[in-house]
Amino acid sequence: MSSDLQSLKLLLTGNPPLGQASEGDRARAPANRMMDNEVFANFLLYSTVLVIKMYLLAVITGQVRLRKKAFANPEDALKHGGLQYCRMDPDVERCRRAHWNDLENILPFLFLGSIYSFLDPDPFIAWLHFFIFFVGRIIHTIAYLVKLRAPIRSVAYTIAQFPCVSMALQILWEVIDTW
Amino acid sequence: MSSDLQSLKLLLTGNPPLGQASEGDRARAPANRMMDNEVFANFLLYSTVLVIKMYLLAVITGQVRLRKKAFANPEDALKHGGLQYCRMDPDVERCRRAHWNDLENILPFLFLGSIYSFLDPDPFIAWLHFFIFFVGRIIHTIAYLVKLRAPIRSVAYTIAQFPCVSMALQILWEVIDTW
Amino acid sequence: MSSDLQSLKLLLTGNPPLGQASEGDRARAPANRMMDNEVFANFLLYSTVLVIKMYLLAVITGQVRLRKKAFANPEDALKHGGLQYCRMDPDVERCRRAHWNDLENILPFLFLGSIYSFLDPDPFIAWLHFFIFFVGRIIHTIAYLVKLRAPIRSVAYTIAQFPCVSMALQILWEVIDTW
Repeated sequence: MSSDLQSLKLLLTGNPPLGQASEGDRARAPANRMMDNEVFANFLLYSTVLVIKMYLLAVITGQVRLRKKAFANPEDALKHGGLQYCRMDPDVERCRRAHWNDLENILPFLFLGSIYSFLDPDPFIAWLHFFIFFVGRIIHTIAYLVKLRAPIRSVAYTIAQFPCVSMALQILWEVIDTW
Repeated sequence: MSSDLQSLKLLLTGNPPLGQASEGDRARAPANRMMDNEVFANFLLYSTVLVIKMYLLAVITGQVRLRKKAFANPEDALKHGGLQYCRMDPDVERCRRAHWNDLENILPFLFLGSIYSFLDPDPFIAWLHFFIFFVGRIIHTIAYLVKLRAPIRSVAYTIAQFPCVSMALQILWEVIDTW
Repeated sequence: MSSDLQSLKLLLTGNPPLGQASEGDRARAPANRMMDNEVFANFLLYSTVLVIKMYLLAVITGQVRLRKKAFANPEDALKHGGLQYCRMDPDVERCRRAHWNDLENILPFLFLGSIYSFLDPDPFIAWLHFFIFFVGRIIHTIAYLVKLRAPIRSVAYTIAQFPCVSMALQILWEVIDTW
């Protein structure tokens, strides 16, 4: 059991000798090998920015709670003026719905995008998947927070789903193809 | 496309010789190497179908909102007849609870299953983990949406938790074992 | 830092020759190679325990529902005494908010921590990231459930965010650095 996990870690940490590659090979490799990694690097860029976007949404939610004096917990309300401030607020709920929708969509994207990046997709097609998702989710959040008129938010949500479904189907196809 | 995923699976399962495979070996390899990657391929199959199931649940929620005229946002209600339709509905809430429960359970499964697939488990035992989780979650969703009598939903939830806890403990065991 | 991420991408894209490591190299490797894998093993330890902690929170929520007789679904209430028990309860909602907050924070950590572990960070610095997050989240859950006075819970939440933002920025830096 342990030797395989070690192999994984080993390969991923990249330190140990992967055979007899000379230092010269290693030193020369990065530049041309980078082209091969374009897809995964691209995915990491968009996905990490989206995770940071989710963190910002949590900060915004906290700020709206403070500004509107609407807390979910009695202990928080007590600290900020009294138990009467343990209450719901439509703007806070709006932030939470935006965040909920992010959890439903961005978290599965982290999984699908990671696997998809390893299927050797065409770099431009892959970039298109990531970029459409990224832009769709950014517009979705803005539309939610700024209350843009319907159906802007729903359209952004739907467009962002296309690359996700596409990646999921390609993963399934790949699995079935290997049987 | 497939050769790269195979390489990944190959590396992660750690079985095949990463050594002196000639180009000829590489060309011949996929068929027999695929057997080694059975566990990861199996995991990808079940996990990706479950992600698609979550996406379908979001679509169903949207359809129930439209049919019951119950929207979470004033801007959506305005577009569909008026502010009076910005309201809660028990069927919509039911869909959302099913989705929430998926987030709590399927998303951690994506993580645990990925790692567990790299621990070189017995392919049948691994398949059993994935399959029990898969069936449990499908029944959970159906029981929620169709309002099957208690405790069908809770039993499906509990059964699906067993492989998750098992995988978590095996990962912990593996980590401790390597110290 | 960048050469290791490149190694990961490289290996996952399956292109490069993995050298001519002999069987002897492989057999000897585990013991000394384990040191290289310290970061990833460390990450797996803390992240898996946190996933188990989330599962425990679900169990606690179920127990509080039974004890307070407050169920979300009519079918559950019917089984436990009658439809009047299909109701909200502040202690149940408290558990659910704690769980929601875990989803918002621990799930992205699973992603960021996995990638970060492959960036060849200093093992002590990496451990510090994981450990601070771990302790912060444990205190957060306890503060929520035991209703510790504000702002203990918020402080624990904020402290746990620091390593997450740090890892996200390091991943972004790494991606940008490889261009």
